[in-house]
Amino acid sequence: RAAGLGPKTTRRLGGQLVESLTVNYNFRAQKDDDVTIKVLYCGICHTDLYTIKNEWGTAMYPVVPGHEILGVVTSVGSGVSKFKAGDTVGVGYFVGSCRSCECCGNGYENYCSGMVLTSNGIDPEHGGAVTQGGFSDVMLVNEDYVVRVPDGLPLDKAAPLLCAGVTVYSPMMRFGLNAPGKHLGVVGLGGLGHVAVKFGKAFGMRVTVISTSPGKREEALERLGADEFLVSRDAEQMQAAVGTMDGILDTVSAWHPISPLFALMKPMGQMVFVGGPTKPLELPAYAIVPGGKGIAGNCVGGIRDCQAMLEFAAKHGITAEVEVIKMDYVNTALERLAKNDVRYRFVIDVAGSLGSTS
Amino acid sequence: RAAGLGPKTTRRLGGQLVESLTVNYNFRAQKDDDVTIKVLYCGICHTDLYTIKNEWGTAMYPVVPGHEILGVVTSVGSGVSKFKAGDTVGVGYFVGSCRSCECCGNGYENYCSGMVLTSNGIDPEHGGAVTQGGFSDVMLVNEDYVVRVPDGLPLDKAAPLLCAGVTVYSPMMRFGLNAPGKHLGVVGLGGLGHVAVKFGKAFGMRVTVISTSPGKREEALERLGADEFLVSRDAEQMQAAVGTMDGILDTVSAWHPISPLFALMKPMGQMVFVGGPTKPLELPAYAIVPGGKGIAGNCVGGIRDCQAMLEFAAKHGITAEVEVIKMDYVNTALERLAKNDVRYRFVIDVAGSLGSTS
Repeated sequence: RAAGLGPKTTRRLGGQLVESLTVNYNFRAQKDDDVTIKVLYCGICHTDLYTIKNEWGTAMYPVVPGHEILGVVTSVGSGVSKFKAGDTVGVGYFVGSCRSCECCGNGYENYCSGMVLTSNGIDPEHGGAVTQGGFSDVMLVNEDYVVRVPDGLPLDKAAPLLCAGVTVYSPMMRFGLNAPGKHLGVVGLGGLGHVAVKFGKAFGMRVTVISTSPGKREEALERLGADEFLVSRDAEQMQAAVGTMDGILDTVSAWHPISPLFALMKPMGQMVFVGGPTKPLELPAYAIVPGGKGIAGNCVGGIRDCQAMLEFAAKHGITAEVEVIKMDYVNTALERLAKNDVRYRFVIDVAGSLGSTS
Repeated sequence: RAAGLGPKTTRRLGGQLVESLTVNYNFRAQKDDDVTIKVLYCGICHTDLYTIKNEWGTAMYPVVPGHEILGVVTSVGSGVSKFKAGDTVGVGYFVGSCRSCECCGNGYENYCSGMVLTSNGIDPEHGGAVTQGGFSDVMLVNEDYVVRVPDGLPLDKAAPLLCAGVTVYSPMMRFGLNAPGKHLGVVGLGGLGHVAVKFGKAFGMRVTVISTSPGKREEALERLGADEFLVSRDAEQMQAAVGTMDGILDTVSAWHPISPLFALMKPMGQMVFVGGPTKPLELPAYAIVPGGKGIAGNCVGGIRDCQAMLEFAAKHGITAEVEVIKMDYVNTALERLAKNDVRYRFVIDVAGSLGSTS
């Protein structure tokens, strides 16, 4: 499907050489249940970085990244009932699933073994084509994997909600970490962590940010509205908070000790882990057994949660804090992201960079 | 309180020298809300072994072990309403808690930070006395920490239910691993594992035993009623079972890799860990994040669960498989337990060894 490759540049990205280029490709024809979307904005997620650098060994080059997509519907297939041209819509981490397994039936398509990634995925319904993500002017997506963007959300700042937002919102719902008065710990104040703080506060929770960087204190408390801030390397601060939290959302990608985090939780507390370090976490039995505590992984969220999350975000004015860039800055942005040098998410102004095909 | 110490013997227990002796001590006077219990049977749990050998650094010698206690009420205080002389009762892992925290309020006294261990605990309501367990002819216990033993349960075989039974039953209830048709994996076929198999089958589940010992296959399938048996070192068998289980109860105390166990679970599967290895478990992010899987620790269960567990066990004829011993065999039994040489639980015939004080 890649009809031609544009001029190539080679860059060093976190120690690795990565070639970037413009890929020209022909889209499949719009099917009856497809929505054609003009991409307006697309966030840049750490997963894009993992994929581009092939850290998980899954890259099928040329990769077109991007799965935090905000756009406008330009046309719909004859069988589409949920959307019409002109609708503002979003597309997240996946664009397909088996539709028949227990996960799909329960609204957790994100855990379907047949989930089709939005970028660098294989789409069995379309001849096994490799999917191309939102760093692109146009997307064709089956209507069941498109969500409606409620009025009032600024589109650039809402784009990261499609992945970062639902990745923290979905487990908060699943594990009851959405109840007023409960105490939530948020570990790491990056793309995921900063929206977790906002959701926690909107749920009426007490929110404590736990970070290695004392410099983030003011930002956490004053800009994001957290109630407290703990420096994880400060033994005294950590000791004072032992046994106070109902749950913890750990959003840190790099390897780090989790045992001190368990100590912060009350008995039966639930930790949610969304990072992806390659070295195994260390989980001492004493951290979980005497207090009946748990840890669960989480990978994005289902379509139902994604739609509910956007509606909740619109109602409570929750958006990501973003740095909007043009497409020609994307390689620099990726280099900066690899160094965590962004507050808190890069969003590409796709339509403003590439022009429109509609 | 220890009024006198009897003759001492010294034994080697799992490489350590341990002195054992008969302790003569005076009980506190029966309070208004106390139940006085003549101990009939007491199971021997791995925790007794940890405590005796001071592996957790908590032993307050002389230790009187035992927290799987079956007995008969001999007298009650004037304020006791739940029990009367002649009742058959049980006492488990703890004999007190704060009664005012969230855990106590929710029926999880086992996670109360003020929980008073039945053996080798400190009892603030009784002057900070060190509690003495069920390797004793008499116990005095506050009525709120005593459970009723339903008719029809053989007392020797029921004793281990007070700890081993509730330790597996309680998390099965908490995490929904009690639904007909669901598939439960049970790792390890010891004191806990073998009753987990029986509860799983009584709940109507499909139960697969996962063990390092191929020799336990027949026992698991024919004596305990498991549906399947996996040898955890057999890569082919493990591969064939990938993604089939709704949850796993891991009862193995020794350190072992848990990553292959996560692979056996369906998406969103829940592992429950009840062992106590000193070396931290290895938890790779990939084992829990893509499938939204979780692991939680569990330590025994609350009084409500313990009572419900006994009633369920009586209704379904669930008991432990035990080897009944006299008190003079207890040191040999502990040596054998340290080598896992028991199918599946030692139970001391306390009344038959010591005579009666009532």
